[in-house]
Amino acid sequence: MGKLAIVGLGLIGGSIGLALKRAEPVNTEVFGFDKDPGVGARALKAGAIQRLAPSVETAVKDASLVIVATPIIAVRRVFEAMAPQLQRGAVVTDTASTKGDVLRWAAEMLPRNVHFVGGHPMAGKEQSGPQAAESSLFDGRPYCVVPSVDASAGAVNAVVGLAEAVGANAFFLDAAEHDAYAAAISHVPLVASLALFSLARGSAAWPELAGMAGPAFRDLTRLTSGQPEMAHDIFLTNRQNILHWLERYIGELKRLAEMIDSSDADLLFRALAEAQMERESFLANPPKREPALPSVDLPSPNDAFTSMILGGLIQERTKDVTSAFEERAREREREDRLRRRE
Amino acid sequence: MGKLAIVGLGLIGGSIGLALKRAEPVNTEVFGFDKDPGVGARALKAGAIQRLAPSVETAVKDASLVIVATPIIAVRRVFEAMAPQLQRGAVVTDTASTKGDVLRWAAEMLPRNVHFVGGHPMAGKEQSGPQAAESSLFDGRPYCVVPSVDASAGAVNAVVGLAEAVGANAFFLDAAEHDAYAAAISHVPLVASLALFSLARGSAAWPELAGMAGPAFRDLTRLTSGQPEMAHDIFLTNRQNILHWLERYIGELKRLAEMIDSSDADLLFRALAEAQMERESFLANPPKREPALPSVDLPSPNDAFTSMILGGLIQERTKDVTSAFEERAREREREDRLRRRE
Repeated sequence: MGKLAIVGLGLIGGSIGLALKRAEPVNTEVFGFDKDPGVGARALKAGAIQRLAPSVETAVKDASLVIVATPIIAVRRVFEAMAPQLQRGAVVTDTASTKGDVLRWAAEMLPRNVHFVGGHPMAGKEQSGPQAAESSLFDGRPYCVVPSVDASAGAVNAVVGLAEAVGANAFFLDAAEHDAYAAAISHVPLVASLALFSLARGSAAWPELAGMAGPAFRDLTRLTSGQPEMAHDIFLTNRQNILHWLERYIGELKRLAEMIDSSDADLLFRALAEAQMERESFLANPPKREPALPSVDLPSPNDAFTSMILGGLIQERTKDVTSAFEERAREREREDRLRRRE
Repeated sequence: MGKLAIVGLGLIGGSIGLALKRAEPVNTEVFGFDKDPGVGARALKAGAIQRLAPSVETAVKDASLVIVATPIIAVRRVFEAMAPQLQRGAVVTDTASTKGDVLRWAAEMLPRNVHFVGGHPMAGKEQSGPQAAESSLFDGRPYCVVPSVDASAGAVNAVVGLAEAVGANAFFLDAAEHDAYAAAISHVPLVASLALFSLARGSAAWPELAGMAGPAFRDLTRLTSGQPEMAHDIFLTNRQNILHWLERYIGELKRLAEMIDSSDADLLFRALAEAQMERESFLANPPKREPALPSVDLPSPNDAFTSMILGGLIQERTKDVTSAFEERAREREREDRLRRRE
């Protein structure tokens, strides 16, 4: 019997539980813990977990795989609390929206004999909390996998298997590139959404504006309804990247403002038509990510996940994987240099 | 038999046709025209119109109510083409996203003996074109009604009736306030959406960013997929208001950037929690608009609409309505002054 633990049973933790249940794993018991007993009870009742543990410590004891799905800032404390209880060779992952600090905390807090592989499913919705959890939340979504430098190939594969078991598409990033990209694709949209809402809400004409608000305003401001803890923790743990991309976002807005001000109808139309086409092509054919570790001969991720939660963890490090990572790191450096030049 | 004409049979015109059909009006024939014959044929086949006219002129001839649902810039040309064919007492309305220019064009182009009452349903979706049309597009949405200065009470009521017949909630604005509010609640979100997309699309890291994009990026950039004609026409006909509110939007972003930069966790959390609560309260209890002309004893809008499309147009101007409008105009001035002070 393999034991799996989910710490934090809100929207993300609860949805992982439900998605795993949907995948019908055999011989696996899913334990859960949430610091809010009401949230834990709800997750148990919804079937997101099979057993509710009274503490982080009991939840993770003897677990093969531990998923930490708490707010970001709480992750450090959870690592600290669970560290003495983790079994040798356990795989620990998380779901936080930023990865730099989390990987640092893992290196600081977790014992050397467990494997940390960061994770970030790119999913969410307007509602938060366990009542919003659903098994299909991750279906078809990207799932960033950010291995620590000393994670074993088996541990990496287990987290890739987890991502795919919940319906998502795993892909690899290192922490620095994750946080830079997440700032552009996820955190700046969050700030943009907050600013749109506060622009209207702060106006003396708010009653009129609110009465007139259609679906565009609702959709564009929906990130304002996310849990304040989440945005707060993202801003504190990814400050420099967010400020960098925010500045560029303001630059884009000014460029558009100039274009509108110029009243150059042709220029304006061309820019709009181009943007429309580019978004359509993005939706129709999202640029392909390289598959996870393509050239390495590993068991398929789902096999690995199954064997992991059956208790048999692939312990040996594959030399090939190591060199694949090194190759990838060199590639990243090239891309980074390119990026800094833009 | 009353005749109703829809000119422009894309998403909005087509959806109005379908919504009217759903309302099962008696003794009414709905004619349609679109400059693209394929679009017209599709609207006819979908049942959005009962007859497809070969020209604007034949579509509007003898019609009691004409709905112009073309792109904004095309409205002027459509008014010009239809003017000689309009029957005395006909009611003309439109669905454009800006109202100042449209009301000016109506005053310039339409004969004195027809009634123009501007309209703007606050609805839309990611897909455009007739294939995206649906009868429920306007359900529960705000529908701005912007009467020209010399529109009769009956004409105003007919357009309110139209709005309610398609499932929307009508409310009155004058053109200047409509355009100022629409800039804040609809056009700046459009620019914000375009800028978010071009920020990511224009980056050298776009392949990585696109692979990582989750629902937040998709939702926040969805307005980029709207028809370029629409954004283009909005920018050209509401330039000053958009630039004004864009500047304030950039101000909001800078305020948030400073807050993020300060790393003042308490301040940040309080601001985020407040914004979340305010948006929740907006969703749960949107500020009530004053009902349309509350104190005036008029037939209910739907009655008026029915009697209008039955051919019997309420011709007399109601003195009470006029004074209600004057009262409202005074009120608006007070609000305007208040707004300018912020």
